[in-house]
Amino acid sequence: MSAATDMPQKNPPIEFYFDLSSPYSYLGAKQVVEVAAKHRRQVKWYPILLGVIFKTTENRSLMEQPLKADYMTHDVSRIARRMAIPYQPPAVFPFPSQVGARAIYWAATQGPEAAQNLSLALFDAIYADGGDIREAKAVATIATTCQLDGAALLVALETPEIKNQLRQAVSDAVAKQVCGVPFFIVDDEPFWGSDRLHHLDQWLASGGW
Amino acid sequence: MSAATDMPQKNPPIEFYFDLSSPYSYLGAKQVVEVAAKHRRQVKWYPILLGVIFKTTENRSLMEQPLKADYMTHDVSRIARRMAIPYQPPAVFPFPSQVGARAIYWAATQGPEAAQNLSLALFDAIYADGGDIREAKAVATIATTCQLDGAALLVALETPEIKNQLRQAVSDAVAKQVCGVPFFIVDDEPFWGSDRLHHLDQWLASGGW
Repeated sequence: MSAATDMPQKNPPIEFYFDLSSPYSYLGAKQVVEVAAKHRRQVKWYPILLGVIFKTTENRSLMEQPLKADYMTHDVSRIARRMAIPYQPPAVFPFPSQVGARAIYWAATQGPEAAQNLSLALFDAIYADGGDIREAKAVATIATTCQLDGAALLVALETPEIKNQLRQAVSDAVAKQVCGVPFFIVDDEPFWGSDRLHHLDQWLASGGW
Repeated sequence: MSAATDMPQKNPPIEFYFDLSSPYSYLGAKQVVEVAAKHRRQVKWYPILLGVIFKTTENRSLMEQPLKADYMTHDVSRIARRMAIPYQPPAVFPFPSQVGARAIYWAATQGPEAAQNLSLALFDAIYADGGDIREAKAVATIATTCQLDGAALLVALETPEIKNQLRQAVSDAVAKQVCGVPFFIVDDEPFWGSDRLHHLDQWLASGGW
């Protein structure tokens, strides 16, 4: 009997699709951890690339859309203040988030908590501290603060395996109808937007409606 | 002294920008009436044409965007069930909403409550009853159920004044940075989305944060 079959049956995790370059994903990350803990669910962290999703939905970053960019900037700050979530505009925005995303998939191979810890640490570095995580070195430094092996991460980031893994994750997300970020799927029910987490919370509490 | 200056000073209304062809605007209409009553504010009803806003924001209807259309359909039904708001997909969707929008501006000339009553009656006809309000006759029939003069409305709908009024309203909305619908402005604070009404509610309760 394998270790896996020895495990007690657990409720499936909350699948969390996000882009590190999305402030609403940051707000979503802060909340999903709380909702998951409340309902004794794990969070499965799926960093993806919103730019690729946009190609499928034939959309663009809110930051490239007149009027919406200004509103989003105002809205994110206002929500963060309301929820007492530390927030400052990132050093560079929007930014390519591939390196951070790949690092999170590598972290997931290191243990069940590592992906979550690294995801939250990267989000904090960007949006709480106004940092720049575009370069592998910066990501590795943050990984070491999560008790991860920064040197091993730097090696892994150069492998085709990790690049393929991110590519596949984005492709799988599109196949699952993930139309934006942050996006959550739990018990096959999809929720899009950091403003839908109270629905997800109610859904888990009530078993759906 | 004019009648206007005799009036007691009142809190400014909640400006509500919407398109009758937007299901989220319907959900927003149902909620904004309650929030306004709670805080003793009036609602000022501004029907606009989302298509024109999209030209400014360089966007398109969610219904034309792969993935998002399916999600929106699912999300609207789920919210309506959760909030016990009657909802069924409209007979035609999306549909040109100019006639209904102009009728609401005409209703506003008939008295302070008329615009609200007609707006809510049109929304119900579309989304609760699955009706089709593209034609002036259908709108006039609904207007008569609101104790409005359907015949006078039919005449007014043909005038250049009412057409200009809608055109001007859309233009004013863009100038006010209205980047989508439903959109709410109260005390100069903007809120976009039916999912931001709890923020608007908290904002009015707390005086902002």
